[in-house]
Amino acid sequence: MTDPKQPTRTLHVAVDAMGGDHAPGVVLEGVEAALAANPALSVALVGDADVVEPFAASHARCQAVVSTEVIGMDEHPAEAVRRKKDSSVVVGCRLVKEGRAEGFFSAGSTGACLAAGTLVIGRVKGVLRPALVTVVPSPVRPIVLGDIGANADCKPEYLVQFAVMESIYANKVLGIARPRAALLNIGAESTKGSQFAQAAYRLMEEGLDNFAGNAEGGDILTATYDVVVTDGFTGNVCLKTIEGTAKVLLGAVKGVMGKSTLTKLGALPLVGPLKGLKAQISPDTYGGAPLLGLKGALLVGHGSSNAQAICSGVLATAKLVEEGVTETIADALSASEKR
Amino acid sequence: MTDPKQPTRTLHVAVDAMGGDHAPGVVLEGVEAALAANPALSVALVGDADVVEPFAASHARCQAVVSTEVIGMDEHPAEAVRRKKDSSVVVGCRLVKEGRAEGFFSAGSTGACLAAGTLVIGRVKGVLRPALVTVVPSPVRPIVLGDIGANADCKPEYLVQFAVMESIYANKVLGIARPRAALLNIGAESTKGSQFAQAAYRLMEEGLDNFAGNAEGGDILTATYDVVVTDGFTGNVCLKTIEGTAKVLLGAVKGVMGKSTLTKLGALPLVGPLKGLKAQISPDTYGGAPLLGLKGALLVGHGSSNAQAICSGVLATAKLVEEGVTETIADALSASEKR
Repeated sequence: MTDPKQPTRTLHVAVDAMGGDHAPGVVLEGVEAALAANPALSVALVGDADVVEPFAASHARCQAVVSTEVIGMDEHPAEAVRRKKDSSVVVGCRLVKEGRAEGFFSAGSTGACLAAGTLVIGRVKGVLRPALVTVVPSPVRPIVLGDIGANADCKPEYLVQFAVMESIYANKVLGIARPRAALLNIGAESTKGSQFAQAAYRLMEEGLDNFAGNAEGGDILTATYDVVVTDGFTGNVCLKTIEGTAKVLLGAVKGVMGKSTLTKLGALPLVGPLKGLKAQISPDTYGGAPLLGLKGALLVGHGSSNAQAICSGVLATAKLVEEGVTETIADALSASEKR
Repeated sequence: MTDPKQPTRTLHVAVDAMGGDHAPGVVLEGVEAALAANPALSVALVGDADVVEPFAASHARCQAVVSTEVIGMDEHPAEAVRRKKDSSVVVGCRLVKEGRAEGFFSAGSTGACLAAGTLVIGRVKGVLRPALVTVVPSPVRPIVLGDIGANADCKPEYLVQFAVMESIYANKVLGIARPRAALLNIGAESTKGSQFAQAAYRLMEEGLDNFAGNAEGGDILTATYDVVVTDGFTGNVCLKTIEGTAKVLLGAVKGVMGKSTLTKLGALPLVGPLKGLKAQISPDTYGGAPLLGLKGALLVGHGSSNAQAICSGVLATAKLVEEGVTETIADALSASEKR
């Protein structure tokens, strides 16, 4: 995820020191690694004074921003964001809103991040709904999938914008020159699927240059398309189904290997390559899901993030900033409005 | 799937000799195996005269029923069912409608089977929509999932009935004493999910004795619940995602094993157990998806069915008949109407 080129400008990223199941320990470790990996990165570390101040004092390109509250994983997201104005998530988003940072990374409550992103940073003009987007790690090649849960209820027109934003992300962040965007549906033909899916198909066919038709559930991990667009309900079910299926199946393969002395011995030369496969399909590689369509970069990490995932997440946020994803989305969606 | 008990009565099952990518060859092979496996089975074999008559003449407990048309995989299902009244799918359903068979199995066009089932066999009184249901093969244990595509657009009240029908299926066919039924959703709490999912949750909580709350995508293959209920759009995406993920991951594991002479040698003792795992998670083991809620048993097989899958499908149809799944559904749903 790091850029081998010389830094042309400083990338200002705010990081939530208090977010995640293993915060602040792994967050500090991850930030340290990210600072070392990208010399253009400058971090505004948000959290309790006794956490962020000593770290900032001992690290170059890191500034402490003290917050006094934390939003818990079990709090009602929008209520907590409104009430806890000095929480690390709200303060981090405010830094972006005020232009003191260009992006914010948090491994805290996804709901709180989505609410704070929308309420504090705000949407780009013309964006109907921001989309939570992920890179699905496949052994074939990475695929962009979204919305994965920011919008459980969608209108067909949202999906056209999701496709535009996700295609920009695939292009700028994954480096896919001309990403092919498909609609997640239950059949190949345009007349297949729910009323909603059929309406989305018509709008996407009409409004997109890179529309590739319908994708089915079996077409995701095979990387038949670069971008798979869906509503937040279906996308969330789909992503969690992929993760759950991978976990159960790789567990079963491991079980097969441990069956006898013979299989254990036989499996020895496979341990290394299988770990490589596991790393290939690990969400930690990509560090988090961006909420696209806001006036600034926001990346939400897994609550269970380890230091490597935090590092990837901070670097991915810097990449969003560096590649000007926010600005490109703003240009594209104001342009599509004028059509 | 066979019952070791002595047959108490004859189970009359109609089979579509013309359905599936490898028909009629694999169908005849599969029927032969099914007749050998279950002495209570009697098959009405539907199809072209030159296919069904010689087979019936040379097999006990098999009767030929000649049909002159076939519905192709690419025809519009409902139109084809209305137009081709002498197609094997329509004739098979008519045998059930007229009481000459108690169940029908076809590996032909799923759409045509669903249309013919609904239009020709007809719904049980009180059933709002029939549900297409599958057994998801998991290395943990089998899970019942539905609807998987008969109803792309659902009302929340349909899902309560799907749960009742799927629970009866899990009980009668998989032998689960008290199946726990969950709603597929994007969060554990009752307030999570789309408006549709929230409404379905309330109705299921109110109307079901065995409701176990929300399941997420990651809870399917882990067999956290016995029955997972959803609309036909989400269910189809979910099932195909599981199949696609399994295919890609097991392919990648195979790739890892073939990497070098050392890994190839090491993998040798694993080949047998991995084939066992592959069989465990193969849809062929269950032979097809029943459309529950019709006045008779209807089971739809994969178009790509091999002889083993056809055999499993015919035996599973006989099992639906033997266990009185249709009658139990009729009792349960007329009882729920009276509440």
